[in-house]
Amino acid sequence: MARQERAVRTRNALIESAAELFDRDGFETASLSTISARAGVSNGALHFHFASKAALAAAVCEAAAQRLGRITGEGGEQEQADGALQILIDASHALLRGFSHDVVLRAGFDLGDSPESTGAGEDLHRRWQGWVEAVFAQADREGTLADDVSAQDAALAVVAAVAGFEALGGQDPQWLSPASLTRFWGLLLPRLAEESVLDRLVASGTAAEAG
Amino acid sequence: MARQERAVRTRNALIESAAELFDRDGFETASLSTISARAGVSNGALHFHFASKAALAAAVCEAAAQRLGRITGEGGEQEQADGALQILIDASHALLRGFSHDVVLRAGFDLGDSPESTGAGEDLHRRWQGWVEAVFAQADREGTLADDVSAQDAALAVVAAVAGFEALGGQDPQWLSPASLTRFWGLLLPRLAEESVLDRLVASGTAAEAG
Repeated sequence: MARQERAVRTRNALIESAAELFDRDGFETASLSTISARAGVSNGALHFHFASKAALAAAVCEAAAQRLGRITGEGGEQEQADGALQILIDASHALLRGFSHDVVLRAGFDLGDSPESTGAGEDLHRRWQGWVEAVFAQADREGTLADDVSAQDAALAVVAAVAGFEALGGQDPQWLSPASLTRFWGLLLPRLAEESVLDRLVASGTAAEAG
Repeated sequence: MARQERAVRTRNALIESAAELFDRDGFETASLSTISARAGVSNGALHFHFASKAALAAAVCEAAAQRLGRITGEGGEQEQADGALQILIDASHALLRGFSHDVVLRAGFDLGDSPESTGAGEDLHRRWQGWVEAVFAQADREGTLADDVSAQDAALAVVAAVAGFEALGGQDPQWLSPASLTRFWGLLLPRLAEESVLDRLVASGTAAEAG
């Protein structure tokens, strides 16, 4: 293995290991020596890649932000076909799937919540919220949002509910199941979607096996 | 002050202090000596009242459960007048008010989420969820829930959203503001409420200054 490739692997292993320990023990409690041991590298190697625990947290947030970017970008090519609301439904399913099996994504979102790690990275909840607001504004422009619904109120409800599924899912994985989110969309869509597009929307997502 | 009264005050001060430190530092990190110092009592006094940190956590949960009981029981006498949906709206506002200013309530809910404190007390999220489900079932029976809405799906959406307001509010207090929750209810009620009762429902709550 070339030296550079080995360095990238080590760095990624450290990010993964840090995410696991931040997720399990919290940023404050997780120790650098446990993180390096779990990644199978020496303390020296950790310090070669990351100057501090905060730098490691920033790298976890950056990796999580990339994954969120893929989730919110996933619908790019289907935009014309399905419209903004379906793109949002699909992304919300992909995000909850991520929360249930991708510890880097989960830890990245949680690090933004932790006062001790402030400044470690951008607040991913806020980034997700900005994207949801933009998608509802797009639905409004394309005429698929119901006339009497404000795009901002719709975004507020969806962002709150998804954050709730995430928070409750930490205790009871049932909340992160696709079935729970599908029931939420099944309830909300008749309120949000313009009547003529409602029948075309798939509350369970159109890409349930992807992502 | 009588000895018994003093003992009750000391116990309550310890519960309040423990809730503050569990909330700020987490159950695992909070130390008994910091808790007793903040309550202005000796370590000996703490150990007289509570055998362990877990016992203190259990007392915080019990105190929070009592407060939740008052919130969900608040609507008792107005039940006939306003119907189940208004009682739920009012209780959700009281709960978010509690999350923003009552550290015992907030810490009690969070302790149920913390794996380290498992068994410290009942899971208050679950208790709140059970109550929300019962209220929607009541709305269904009294005919104020829209015909095509399932009481269980409605409960799922409301429980998820309230948990999301709580989780996001830890970062940005705006999420715990009455205005945010009012916008959520304003969006959701036309979907949930039977048409003839919709005009009577107050999304901002009927007891905004109480509780």
